[in-house]
Amino acid sequence: MTLLQIIEGACGRAARRGKVYRQVSKGANMTTIASHTLTFTRTDPELNELFERTQEISDLDNLLSLLGWDQQVNMPPQANQIRGPQLATLQALAHERRTAPRIGELLDIVGPRVQGEGYTDADRGLVREARRAYDQNTKIPAALVREVAETTSAAWGAWEQAKPANDFALFAPHLRKVVTLMRQVAEHLGYQGSPYNALLDLYEPGMTLDTLNPIFARVREATVDLLRRIQASGRAIDTSCIHGTFDTAKQLDLCTEMLKRMGYRFEAGRMDQSSHPFTGGGGSPFDVRLTTRVDPTYLPMALMAAIHEGGHALYEQGSDPALARTILAGGTSMGLHESESRLWENYIGRSLPFWKRHVDLLRTTFPETFGRREVEEFVSAINEVKPSFIRTEADEVTYNLHIIIRFELEQGLITGEIDVDDLPHLWNQKYHDYLGIVPPTDTLGVLQDIHWSGGSFGYFPTYTLGNLYGAQIYHTLRQVFPDFDERLATEGTAFILNWLREQMYAYGKTYTPDEVIRKMTGEALNPEYFVQYANAKFGSLYGLNA
Amino acid sequence: MTLLQIIEGACGRAARRGKVYRQVSKGANMTTIASHTLTFTRTDPELNELFERTQEISDLDNLLSLLGWDQQVNMPPQANQIRGPQLATLQALAHERRTAPRIGELLDIVGPRVQGEGYTDADRGLVREARRAYDQNTKIPAALVREVAETTSAAWGAWEQAKPANDFALFAPHLRKVVTLMRQVAEHLGYQGSPYNALLDLYEPGMTLDTLNPIFARVREATVDLLRRIQASGRAIDTSCIHGTFDTAKQLDLCTEMLKRMGYRFEAGRMDQSSHPFTGGGGSPFDVRLTTRVDPTYLPMALMAAIHEGGHALYEQGSDPALARTILAGGTSMGLHESESRLWENYIGRSLPFWKRHVDLLRTTFPETFGRREVEEFVSAINEVKPSFIRTEADEVTYNLHIIIRFELEQGLITGEIDVDDLPHLWNQKYHDYLGIVPPTDTLGVLQDIHWSGGSFGYFPTYTLGNLYGAQIYHTLRQVFPDFDERLATEGTAFILNWLREQMYAYGKTYTPDEVIRKMTGEALNPEYFVQYANAKFGSLYGLNA
Repeated sequence: MTLLQIIEGACGRAARRGKVYRQVSKGANMTTIASHTLTFTRTDPELNELFERTQEISDLDNLLSLLGWDQQVNMPPQANQIRGPQLATLQALAHERRTAPRIGELLDIVGPRVQGEGYTDADRGLVREARRAYDQNTKIPAALVREVAETTSAAWGAWEQAKPANDFALFAPHLRKVVTLMRQVAEHLGYQGSPYNALLDLYEPGMTLDTLNPIFARVREATVDLLRRIQASGRAIDTSCIHGTFDTAKQLDLCTEMLKRMGYRFEAGRMDQSSHPFTGGGGSPFDVRLTTRVDPTYLPMALMAAIHEGGHALYEQGSDPALARTILAGGTSMGLHESESRLWENYIGRSLPFWKRHVDLLRTTFPETFGRREVEEFVSAINEVKPSFIRTEADEVTYNLHIIIRFELEQGLITGEIDVDDLPHLWNQKYHDYLGIVPPTDTLGVLQDIHWSGGSFGYFPTYTLGNLYGAQIYHTLRQVFPDFDERLATEGTAFILNWLREQMYAYGKTYTPDEVIRKMTGEALNPEYFVQYANAKFGSLYGLNA
Repeated sequence: MTLLQIIEGACGRAARRGKVYRQVSKGANMTTIASHTLTFTRTDPELNELFERTQEISDLDNLLSLLGWDQQVNMPPQANQIRGPQLATLQALAHERRTAPRIGELLDIVGPRVQGEGYTDADRGLVREARRAYDQNTKIPAALVREVAETTSAAWGAWEQAKPANDFALFAPHLRKVVTLMRQVAEHLGYQGSPYNALLDLYEPGMTLDTLNPIFARVREATVDLLRRIQASGRAIDTSCIHGTFDTAKQLDLCTEMLKRMGYRFEAGRMDQSSHPFTGGGGSPFDVRLTTRVDPTYLPMALMAAIHEGGHALYEQGSDPALARTILAGGTSMGLHESESRLWENYIGRSLPFWKRHVDLLRTTFPETFGRREVEEFVSAINEVKPSFIRTEADEVTYNLHIIIRFELEQGLITGEIDVDDLPHLWNQKYHDYLGIVPPTDTLGVLQDIHWSGGSFGYFPTYTLGNLYGAQIYHTLRQVFPDFDERLATEGTAFILNWLREQMYAYGKTYTPDEVIRKMTGEALNPEYFVQYANAKFGSLYGLNA
């Protein structure tokens, strides 16, 4: 088992994120993409050997991902007693393949070669991803991997007890050990500047604090300001139409129909229920499965989760078939993956034009609630802004503040500027400063997330990166299609999906996140698009612009 | 991929039978079991190393079985494009483990040792099963395995075309190649007497034609005679109550409730639908999943399939937890596995006492049909005897004749006494002689089964062996419990399941089939119990004894 699989397993988003260790390296920085092709040069013997070895690894990773899907969707409870060791056996075999010295030799041979004439972007992407995975899998000593596995396993157990008991002191010594180990991991991985950069790079290749700190500071400042103005407006949104009694089977039918309209291909996937919605399956683009979760008294729970996971799934299903069974299939980073779930869920899926097109689904599925209601009322209800303690229940405005709080704290933990014992106090202080609320308990505060117990430091920022990438891509879409709202309201989303496939989805991991966002939008990540979007949308909703 | 996995994959019962290559060897012949224990002697270093190596193989086999379950139950259609190669990758890794020379060395060391003092029956079972699997996996040259894979794949494709087209000539050249290869396989495996014995032993360890031929001749003779008398009786069974309109969801509820009453543990399994019902999952006894198939116009389709698969599943769930993740978990042979599906489906599940106990389920699920109907009418209906062309639709009396026809023909093919071109004629001749009917087409005749296209010669007999073992065990049950019918009609099946667990299920593959049947019933396989059962039951139903 690799370090990242341990971290990811503990984190619970493993199935969706199962391919994080195959993300792009920080080295490559192309600003323009002159030419590309998704054909691999199989006539080069060493490159072909690398291709076949990585294909084998990709097959095993995909089967592991599928077994993870089974675990969350179908597995009977008593199977718990055997599944862990069974997966460990398979992981050990996969680890042998991932760390085969021959891969290192091949990378040394073909690495320089593919930069020259006669090789394709797919070749270069393959070598970059293979190098990244090989380095990550070989740099951390086996003893440290084992120690992380044992420590995070114990920390997870302590967290599971501490959270409901509101007992941070029970969790603290475990968390301290995890932090110490993750610093060691960072040292082995290597970094420039802060050790936190080494961990950040695991999840968002090429991202560093130098880039991230000013971006997140800007988002924080703008969001805190917007939130204060919203609260000062005194305006309350009527959310009564999304609370009530909504038959579970009908909600699932609604989700299915919505996914079909979004262009999700059920012939290459399926929708099931699980306690935490996720997207996984047996391999992009032909086996991409998603789940949702139903609350029979709250309509957006299942519906918006389905649209969110649908965004992830459209990205995965969009990989060019030429990438199937290669390490380039799927999404290129966690941040860009989240950009697609957020794009579909929030920028598109919480917009009025979208619901003008799809209100018929609401009306036919739940005629008693929506039969005679204006679509504007539903759209307002799903856009209410309201500070809350729990990240996973947050709205579009406050969500990033939850993330930024965690980002600031975990950065301090890793650099040693913050001590574990100070976490609850600092957590509550930041909630007070940014969100204007103070959690009454650590259960609703610092103990709420599973991530740190599993060593997932550097992971949280990718949520907000997703929101920012998403806003930038959404802005570009509106530029490319000047009649965006009108087409969305009348035609639906097919024109959007086509553009996203051509510009992004088809390439899988062929390009780095930085390359992708520049190629799509013409510039590097820029938080102003989110700030403008949020100010415009919520300014209008709360009457701030008058 | 091993030869048997190819054969099994083509055969379609792979998921249920996925562990056939870990069956018992023909060597061991204990007539009494003096002492036993299900504890492994982990203090012996070489035995422990063998234990751990076989545990790794068992883990991989179980995960492969689970992936097979997914393929039949959940897999979206387009995943077909990647799943085969993905599984081939995993199979190749598993094959490396199965054929590791170190296993051969360890077997040579511990083989004699475990026969001495201080070792348990579990140790001896482990060594026997490991030796059997190692020999099967190493005796057949890789080139031949590959040739079988390619040839059966092409033969399967031809069969798929030939069957609906009623075109035996299209299939014949492929079948001829398969037969030639399977003769080569037999030579590599080694045998005494007929080469058919080598193939038979793959599915039913220790079984030979010397034993089987007289047994099957006896069953054929008695069954043909019984069938003639039934037909001569002129009595017709009223089956109207099992035909009609039966809501699919209600049928599934009925199956679920029945499985619970049988003692199937849903916490260690689940029931789904698939086009061919089977039992599989991620490992006995903690992850044993079954499927059924619903015909909305014919009640016994789903219900009796659920009880049949429930029998398989009870055997698998019955393995002692000490055997979990070892190669001894699960059923000890295909014939004995089928004995349990048939015991539960036919000997118990088509009996009047069983339905006296459970008629309430029929009445509450389908009150319009069964609310006021006598239970005897339902039991008669599900026991109608009627010669038909299709094996899978056959009743308890004629089923074995379908098998014996295939057994006689495939034996001739392997020994060279029958030529492929003569098959359709011989097939129809035998149907005429034994069943008194002649298939109007090869689609309904020699082309109906998938088995031969995949090289599954020696497989068919295990169906009838299951019926015979089942009758013998049923006879013993009635001896052990003199008030069997009364208890069944009032208490249900718990006392039966307890006895089966103690006598058989708990031991998994610890003992050979011959050891198991002797231990349970006090004698070797004896067809007279089936003959007596069939004559008594159907003699009574058709009024032949008057």
